[in-house]
Amino acid sequence: MTKQKRIEDYGISIGQLPKGKLNKITDIEGIRVGHCTIDTEESKTGVTVILPMKENIYTNKLVAASYVLNGFGKTAGLVQIDELGTLESIIAMTNTLNVGLVHDAVVEYMIEQCNKENVRLESLNPVICECNDSYLNNIQIRAVKKEHVYKAIEEACVDFQEGDVGAGKGMSCHQLKGGIGSASRIVKLDGKDYKVGVLVLSNHGRLEDLTINGDRIGSRISKKGRETNNYEDKGSIISIIATDIPLSSRQLKRICKRAGVGLARLGSYIGHGSGEIMIAFSTANILKNYYETDIIEVKLLREDKIDIIFRAVVECEEEAILNSMITSGKVVGFNGKTRDILKNYIGVK
Amino acid sequence: MTKQKRIEDYGISIGQLPKGKLNKITDIEGIRVGHCTIDTEESKTGVTVILPMKENIYTNKLVAASYVLNGFGKTAGLVQIDELGTLESIIAMTNTLNVGLVHDAVVEYMIEQCNKENVRLESLNPVICECNDSYLNNIQIRAVKKEHVYKAIEEACVDFQEGDVGAGKGMSCHQLKGGIGSASRIVKLDGKDYKVGVLVLSNHGRLEDLTINGDRIGSRISKKGRETNNYEDKGSIISIIATDIPLSSRQLKRICKRAGVGLARLGSYIGHGSGEIMIAFSTANILKNYYETDIIEVKLLREDKIDIIFRAVVECEEEAILNSMITSGKVVGFNGKTRDILKNYIGVK
Amino acid sequence: MTKQKRIEDYGISIGQLPKGKLNKITDIEGIRVGHCTIDTEESKTGVTVILPMKENIYTNKLVAASYVLNGFGKTAGLVQIDELGTLESIIAMTNTLNVGLVHDAVVEYMIEQCNKENVRLESLNPVICECNDSYLNNIQIRAVKKEHVYKAIEEACVDFQEGDVGAGKGMSCHQLKGGIGSASRIVKLDGKDYKVGVLVLSNHGRLEDLTINGDRIGSRISKKGRETNNYEDKGSIISIIATDIPLSSRQLKRICKRAGVGLARLGSYIGHGSGEIMIAFSTANILKNYYETDIIEVKLLREDKIDIIFRAVVECEEEAILNSMITSGKVVGFNGKTRDILKNYIGVK
Amino acid sequence: MTKQKRIEDYGISIGQLPKGKLNKITDIEGIRVGHCTIDTEESKTGVTVILPMKENIYTNKLVAASYVLNGFGKTAGLVQIDELGTLESIIAMTNTLNVGLVHDAVVEYMIEQCNKENVRLESLNPVICECNDSYLNNIQIRAVKKEHVYKAIEEACVDFQEGDVGAGKGMSCHQLKGGIGSASRIVKLDGKDYKVGVLVLSNHGRLEDLTINGDRIGSRISKKGRETNNYEDKGSIISIIATDIPLSSRQLKRICKRAGVGLARLGSYIGHGSGEIMIAFSTANILKNYYETDIIEVKLLREDKIDIIFRAVVECEEEAILNSMITSGKVVGFNGKTRDILKNYIGVK
Repeated sequence: MTKQKRIEDYGISIGQLPKGKLNKITDIEGIRVGHCTIDTEESKTGVTVILPMKENIYTNKLVAASYVLNGFGKTAGLVQIDELGTLESIIAMTNTLNVGLVHDAVVEYMIEQCNKENVRLESLNPVICECNDSYLNNIQIRAVKKEHVYKAIEEACVDFQEGDVGAGKGMSCHQLKGGIGSASRIVKLDGKDYKVGVLVLSNHGRLEDLTINGDRIGSRISKKGRETNNYEDKGSIISIIATDIPLSSRQLKRICKRAGVGLARLGSYIGHGSGEIMIAFSTANILKNYYETDIIEVKLLREDKIDIIFRAVVECEEEAILNSMITSGKVVGFNGKTRDILKNYIGVK
Repeated sequence: MTKQKRIEDYGISIGQLPKGKLNKITDIEGIRVGHCTIDTEESKTGVTVILPMKENIYTNKLVAASYVLNGFGKTAGLVQIDELGTLESIIAMTNTLNVGLVHDAVVEYMIEQCNKENVRLESLNPVICECNDSYLNNIQIRAVKKEHVYKAIEEACVDFQEGDVGAGKGMSCHQLKGGIGSASRIVKLDGKDYKVGVLVLSNHGRLEDLTINGDRIGSRISKKGRETNNYEDKGSIISIIATDIPLSSRQLKRICKRAGVGLARLGSYIGHGSGEIMIAFSTANILKNYYETDIIEVKLLREDKIDIIFRAVVECEEEAILNSMITSGKVVGFNGKTRDILKNYIGVK
Repeated sequence: MTKQKRIEDYGISIGQLPKGKLNKITDIEGIRVGHCTIDTEESKTGVTVILPMKENIYTNKLVAASYVLNGFGKTAGLVQIDELGTLESIIAMTNTLNVGLVHDAVVEYMIEQCNKENVRLESLNPVICECNDSYLNNIQIRAVKKEHVYKAIEEACVDFQEGDVGAGKGMSCHQLKGGIGSASRIVKLDGKDYKVGVLVLSNHGRLEDLTINGDRIGSRISKKGRETNNYEDKGSIISIIATDIPLSSRQLKRICKRAGVGLARLGSYIGHGSGEIMIAFSTANILKNYYETDIIEVKLLREDKIDIIFRAVVECEEEAILNSMITSGKVVGFNGKTRDILKNYIGVK
Repeated sequence: MTKQKRIEDYGISIGQLPKGKLNKITDIEGIRVGHCTIDTEESKTGVTVILPMKENIYTNKLVAASYVLNGFGKTAGLVQIDELGTLESIIAMTNTLNVGLVHDAVVEYMIEQCNKENVRLESLNPVICECNDSYLNNIQIRAVKKEHVYKAIEEACVDFQEGDVGAGKGMSCHQLKGGIGSASRIVKLDGKDYKVGVLVLSNHGRLEDLTINGDRIGSRISKKGRETNNYEDKGSIISIIATDIPLSSRQLKRICKRAGVGLARLGSYIGHGSGEIMIAFSTANILKNYYETDIIEVKLLREDKIDIIFRAVVECEEEAILNSMITSGKVVGFNGKTRDILKNYIGVK
């Protein structure tokens, strides 16, 4: 795997908080990310999975929350996350019309995980996120099958690739090539280092609106290029936020909301056609299926200390989106269409 | 098809409003319901589809809303219904672990529908509802495949069967046999007859709590039988509400909430493990994908006339659940387990 | 204070769980309830306060949640409860148009409480609930002033009165006289007794719909009396739920939702004009304004043990409403109107 | 009244859409805004009212919605707006602890308005918004009385003042002086000009974060000045959005959400302590209390035309906040504290 050049390598610095070691969501211990990319003449798509822990998450549930900034999207699994405040499945991302097949594959995988522990899984809340890659991908084919999901799970690692990989293969961001991106920040609490990380599947925004650290770069590219300004913001962006700070589902929902600030800083105005969905989970409290007592003890961040987490999420979101764009290479779609890539423009004024 | 004996045929009358011709959700013009039942040694499950209109709903969207009374459930499609207030897909119901495969089949079916109109469908919000039939069905098999969904669509009709059919095959209600049930009411507005209908997939409740028109029948059955009282309310109930009254999505959400009253009247206390999900749509305003003007005219019920609709929904919900139970025959599960059936107890005091 | 005859004293038993010592919300240690009733020719109204603890709640915040079953109501304070999941003020109940003056009085009282601790209070989220007593009370007068709020606080006690007292003076319930009612249940967890209590300000429902333990008593009274059946369900009901079980705000919101089941069991169908608002708080975890550490430990009920709390809330809600009616005496309104009282009908069939 | 120099007069241009005639919320026909400023030694506060129409809004309700971006706030009236989707009261803004008295005054005013039409008002949902001005104002005094609310109503006009007036007297924004600001945009639909306008009461943000059109001016000011960087974002911002485009309450809620983008563009990250509350209403469909028919006709914007409204709201929000700052003069607080004013820094790099 070649090391990818990321936005910070171009001298663009986002925010002020210290970054995690890899500056990826996998800086939170236990998290791994895997891709399976499908790149055929017709299909420019794939699947990306987030494995929140090495153990079976069904029997080691995590506290979680979601927030729908703009619900023009088809993510499955939010109803139960909202009610119970827990994540009990790995998270998978794919294209819009492939939610069903990926859903089925995740069910099968989780059944197998439970079988290993002699747990008969009869109910599961799979979390399947999607963006619409039909600009480059022949989406009706629904190319992502069970084997691709399993491949992505097998390939899952800590230092994962970004850009036009996995579910990101066919995605566009601000009318440039988008896809998978990530970033992380370190937050000090009680004298100890905690981490906040974000992974995005970016597929939203208009070129003209793209703004990096106050520089309206999109407007300049737009004038040079062939993209028209009356493009509508379709697409979507999925933002997965993880942390090892102990937070309640209510607090995680508050944190989800701040991801929208990162979006706005890059120039998005949260277009009608763009499904903006955030899911957050914390690895700090593991909820077992069985306890000896009815009442348990959990750790929790004091509410008045949450501001720094908000800032971390905003910074991560902004940088993750930029990473999703800057690491993407050129992809020619099934229809011959293509997207410009951001690295052709960085540095040029 | 044999005519089924329904709750009113046992002399049990629910509510006071006049009933529709069939006393089913299909009393609303254009709606059809289809089942495909899977009945093998291992599989006691199936799929039920609701076709909201004869036309292609993707190009003839309907105003819709959802409400999650208890979100311990995996229904897909609610995010977009909540944001846009529209239904753009047929609705399918199945078992919990089959949501993925049914989702994929609905996508394929809708692509075909759109192809007929030369519309290239690249985005769709399928609405896939589920309950957990693992008490009788070997749910891990995920027996419902594409062909079953297509079969259910083909079989869709106005005077559909209730009980242990389609998605209802393996469901339990108040620890008796449950499944598909329906009811409708007539509401007069501006001197004209409008209809409200409900279809449920019932799979919730404790036997001991079951109460019919104030008669605590469940408690009596419970004492006779082998069911223990410390049973937890797992399961779920899906309630689909339809009407030809012009309502906004906000009004439809209010209506969804009242279905919970029907549940409560039968003795349910909305248990922790029971996903109670309501989806409502109105056939009165069809939203086309293209219009000549930016601003359109729609009809709308005056808010202060909504009480009668609330009452209609409560009555329909209560009667639909009873119909789901009374029409169900005995089903022996893959594991040899079975459920008592309500008709063995009606009349007995 | 004369001992009031409550619904259980009439041989009507609601539910199956053991009741608290007083069978009132004040069975949860620390909670007191106070009334100030205004009974003049024009004004049949008042204020009822719930003091959640002996200490200053602003510096000893409690975990809380709210749920709006029907938002045709004007309760103030829910925005912040929903965001932060905490209660930081005493709760006051009054008539609809008096929310402002009672709000101001609560602010003043809380400033004084904080002054005693040398805390300068500059921000407060007062929780002011209301129902509309204009059937009997000349509501435009806004008779409840600061002194009445202070009086209610002073009078607060554990064994408080129910019925046509305090904010309940002019309220109607199912077109009979309603007002303040309460009930409690005992729940055993880890071998220890915990309590769940409800206090309602009842002012909702149609007479014809009133059903007690399956007996449609309202329909019978209605036929005898002068009340017409086309009465609309205006009014509202406020339900305050308290417990000493450690619950998160997410869990408390789930609990709030179950109060609706109690309403439905008495025959309400949650009418359009009836604001149904639930607020729940737990006294188990006190959140201080200052901590030595950023991360704290809190106790929490395991989610799969929540069903028994749901049942307790349903039973309490149902019994509290009945207590609000059965303890109410006759009140003749400013306009000469009056409401029948339930005790005239209990026992009569 | 002297003409105030606004942000555009300093050569700072926000967005690309054409502005309304006054570039204020009052460009929407019928809307007027009035202030009453209280400026004594102890009190630096006041009240600002928005009169949505010349007629009595209680008998001419408007479609409305709200959105709570961060609910650390005490705004009253949102429960009913969310349920019924209508505004039936004038809107008033004041300081946090004055919500009660202003609430009472609005009730009295609306009773009088109804009396003129021989309508007996017995229920009202007053909308009272607040920010916390305790940095400059002795907030415990609750200086805003009935006469101030009436004065603000009397003074209401189309070409109203901005900055440190009315409720804005004591507010701070990004640690500079903030207060009342407004802006508007023109949107063409079906060949006709429609307007979107925003009025803010700004009281949020950290100085260091303030960014104007990509210029991190706040960071520069911060380095020069005495403000410390570890300041927390307390405060709040109230955003009132109005339009003459016919929108449903669901659409208005979507529009409310986009105001957050304007906030983010100015550098806010939506701090924990900052209540960010948006209320939107449309003047296009007037809902009468009585109709001859049960079903009415309303106009509605096609959903796929909503993007331009989103952009208009984002631009208005951003410019309104800047106007609130740039028009504010110096205010010395009751405690001798003061805030720098933005116009001292504009132009300086």
